[in-house]
Amino acid sequence: MDQHVKKVGINCDMGEGFGKWKMGADDELIKIVDYANIACGFHAGDPTMMLKTIRLAKEHGVKIGAHPGLQDLFGFGRRKIEVDPEDMYAMVLYQVGALKAMLDAEGVPLNHIKPHGELFFYMQRDLVIMDAVLRACAVFGVPVFGSKGTESQGAMCAKYGLVFVEEAYVDLQYDKHRKLLPARESKLATVEDVYQRTMSIGLEDSVTDNEGNVFTIGFDGQPFLFCIHSDMPTALENAKACRRGIDEINQKRGW
Amino acid sequence: MDQHVKKVGINCDMGEGFGKWKMGADDELIKIVDYANIACGFHAGDPTMMLKTIRLAKEHGVKIGAHPGLQDLFGFGRRKIEVDPEDMYAMVLYQVGALKAMLDAEGVPLNHIKPHGELFFYMQRDLVIMDAVLRACAVFGVPVFGSKGTESQGAMCAKYGLVFVEEAYVDLQYDKHRKLLPARESKLATVEDVYQRTMSIGLEDSVTDNEGNVFTIGFDGQPFLFCIHSDMPTALENAKACRRGIDEINQKRGW
Amino acid sequence: MDQHVKKVGINCDMGEGFGKWKMGADDELIKIVDYANIACGFHAGDPTMMLKTIRLAKEHGVKIGAHPGLQDLFGFGRRKIEVDPEDMYAMVLYQVGALKAMLDAEGVPLNHIKPHGELFFYMQRDLVIMDAVLRACAVFGVPVFGSKGTESQGAMCAKYGLVFVEEAYVDLQYDKHRKLLPARESKLATVEDVYQRTMSIGLEDSVTDNEGNVFTIGFDGQPFLFCIHSDMPTALENAKACRRGIDEINQKRGW
Amino acid sequence: MDQHVKKVGINCDMGEGFGKWKMGADDELIKIVDYANIACGFHAGDPTMMLKTIRLAKEHGVKIGAHPGLQDLFGFGRRKIEVDPEDMYAMVLYQVGALKAMLDAEGVPLNHIKPHGELFFYMQRDLVIMDAVLRACAVFGVPVFGSKGTESQGAMCAKYGLVFVEEAYVDLQYDKHRKLLPARESKLATVEDVYQRTMSIGLEDSVTDNEGNVFTIGFDGQPFLFCIHSDMPTALENAKACRRGIDEINQKRGW
Repeated sequence: MDQHVKKVGINCDMGEGFGKWKMGADDELIKIVDYANIACGFHAGDPTMMLKTIRLAKEHGVKIGAHPGLQDLFGFGRRKIEVDPEDMYAMVLYQVGALKAMLDAEGVPLNHIKPHGELFFYMQRDLVIMDAVLRACAVFGVPVFGSKGTESQGAMCAKYGLVFVEEAYVDLQYDKHRKLLPARESKLATVEDVYQRTMSIGLEDSVTDNEGNVFTIGFDGQPFLFCIHSDMPTALENAKACRRGIDEINQKRGW
Repeated sequence: MDQHVKKVGINCDMGEGFGKWKMGADDELIKIVDYANIACGFHAGDPTMMLKTIRLAKEHGVKIGAHPGLQDLFGFGRRKIEVDPEDMYAMVLYQVGALKAMLDAEGVPLNHIKPHGELFFYMQRDLVIMDAVLRACAVFGVPVFGSKGTESQGAMCAKYGLVFVEEAYVDLQYDKHRKLLPARESKLATVEDVYQRTMSIGLEDSVTDNEGNVFTIGFDGQPFLFCIHSDMPTALENAKACRRGIDEINQKRGW
Repeated sequence: MDQHVKKVGINCDMGEGFGKWKMGADDELIKIVDYANIACGFHAGDPTMMLKTIRLAKEHGVKIGAHPGLQDLFGFGRRKIEVDPEDMYAMVLYQVGALKAMLDAEGVPLNHIKPHGELFFYMQRDLVIMDAVLRACAVFGVPVFGSKGTESQGAMCAKYGLVFVEEAYVDLQYDKHRKLLPARESKLATVEDVYQRTMSIGLEDSVTDNEGNVFTIGFDGQPFLFCIHSDMPTALENAKACRRGIDEINQKRGW
Repeated sequence: MDQHVKKVGINCDMGEGFGKWKMGADDELIKIVDYANIACGFHAGDPTMMLKTIRLAKEHGVKIGAHPGLQDLFGFGRRKIEVDPEDMYAMVLYQVGALKAMLDAEGVPLNHIKPHGELFFYMQRDLVIMDAVLRACAVFGVPVFGSKGTESQGAMCAKYGLVFVEEAYVDLQYDKHRKLLPARESKLATVEDVYQRTMSIGLEDSVTDNEGNVFTIGFDGQPFLFCIHSDMPTALENAKACRRGIDEINQKRGW
């Protein structure tokens, strides 16, 4: 694990509405999180919403990352779409570049890139796609955020000189293969669940899966990130519970 | 007139297809022109086509500008659409930023920005929109290309520290108000017309309008640009005739 | 006023989300209204949402109309867009035809067509556009719903053999020109306001404008429709208050 | 093979441009073919182009079918996209319904439905998708055109009371599995190839594959359709050669 993050923190997807349609309590969540992943107009978001969300994050001192996705407003970037690797490379450059120009306009740096939904899963399934995405990320030279992926992910990031920052989730359950369950298959997390999992992962590097077995995450005593799903109805409560845990962890650990 | 251009040259809109649909003989035109205005995906173009066109221009040593437009693939950016100025500002940042990232990836600079079709006319009609567009252009700090516009255009460019580079057209006729006629109202230019107009504008700073009267353009002995419409059936012949004239002009003028 | 409606009733725009994005409390409003105007995918709505909303309306015995709009998801069909009349004719056929096929699949009739937002205003401003829209509506042969429009509206509907059903609004204020104020300029209506205006319009054919003056609507003792804005935060309360009034009106009037 | 077609004929995809972008020589092809499959706006086409193509076909007495596709203008409906079966059902109703309304306006019947590109392949791979598409087709009650598909196709059409009309191709090669090769893998057909294959299939029910072996198609002496790819550069010559063959076949066979 790299030292890009010095403390345990929370990242959250933001700006995921479109035009008149809203998604997520960005105005409230921004007060709680450390990193905002801003949608870039392909799976969600539009130029105006991107700029507005950048200004909101800037105002609250929250670091900003690009959140590129597949070109699929209807499916919110969660459907499998076959993309030619060269198209993919160009699509990631396009989205992150669009956000980057707005950050330049606002005088704040691009902190990271976090591929959205199916784009992330596509990278895990298909190494040519992973290569295309990371090659595009390398143009910006910032860390890539994401779940612990295949081993190839680490190697390929290294190839492009990119840092990969790993995340843990506490608002959904992991299964016995240490894979995050989709919302519809996961038991609804209570605020107490979120807090307990945050503390367990932060202090013991382990968490209980959906069958009740404890497994080790593998952060090896280094700072890492939690990710809170902003589109869950309980997102705000979850973020607060996670925040409470994080503050205790950072204090105990001296981060 | 600023000194951004040191010689008379040609600029041409390129990359104006979408997906499988083509527009314009980019592969041939690129050998003739000095500046390529590359569509950014809103009125035409897609990420892959943008990158391909950048590489084509780079290969031929052609300077590259962003060609942002209104969000209107169906109308090719030529229909009037009411846009909130803050939306407009964000949309220009978005498009130019997307292209800029690809230029960064290819190691070539952004040379200029040229608003497309109705976006340019909108700026001329509405000073709040002009302000929004130029404010976005100022983030990139490159010259803006366009027809000789309202006086406010010069003043507003100055406000944002932007150079405005003026163009002349030789493939369509001007009317008695020195306004370019739309293609459907203009007499079809022959190759000889294009050459004669090029020479007349380049050496005498004047051209004949659609009623046969000569008027002065106003380039005042300074280098300027010609723009060739890449979507006219005779685009390639027009570009060649204009090129022939330009080369003679630059030689005679010692540019 | 025609006899298409036999009682005073409520119509409401529905199915105005897109993909994962929601808009309006359709599940609750459907229990209160008489007519659902279903968005057809151009300003809002998608095929799945259209079908789902049709089934919802069918389940509750609510009559269904098509709610076509300008092709503008980003602007929710509320921005001015220049549309060629032949494009407009084809766009209305396209949208209403799409909905009609789903109604056929579900075995329920198309009851009416109600142009959305800026499409309606465009018709009022531009008679060539009104002609194009009504000519498309005539293919389906169902009544057109809308605010009391220009006189030409009545004449043009007659030309195409179309019935025009007029509406009154009670959740926004009218100005002294009897024109509905946009939400941002209108005083927020209380539930009591909504009920009082409903009763006043239904029993006395008059309402108080934003300056406190009473004016006559002009329904001339014939049944008509109320329209409730489904995208206002108080939509559900407004619909309930209007419903209460309507039921009293229909009883008193013997409709 | 059903008796929906009484003679051997040609069908061709048409109206596959978008906005200002063109695709295919529709104006010429329409004089040669018997059936036009008109794109419905999802993979290509727009409302205006649909209506224009309908009028063109009507003028030339060419029968009209709907040509629905996946929602993918960028990929021209040729990329794999994961679609929920209920979304698919609604998307086919939407597209065919939109075209149907225009046919109603023009007073011509919907003759058939032909799924485009990847939508057809998706049906072959996934029976739940095939069911969804055919269930939507059943609402219109017209025959479905397509290549000879899986056996399930016939059974499923029967389930919905639909006729399936099979096609043969003569501008691309078949491989040894009797599967049509993609354009990039197929040897370019000469005009003579197209004519010979037309005659061979029409009179002998057999054709030579890309390895030189003859195989039986299986039309069993019944009329069927040829399909000509309108987006191949040689489309017009191919259509003419096929037409010449067809006219001879119909005469010899007494169809």
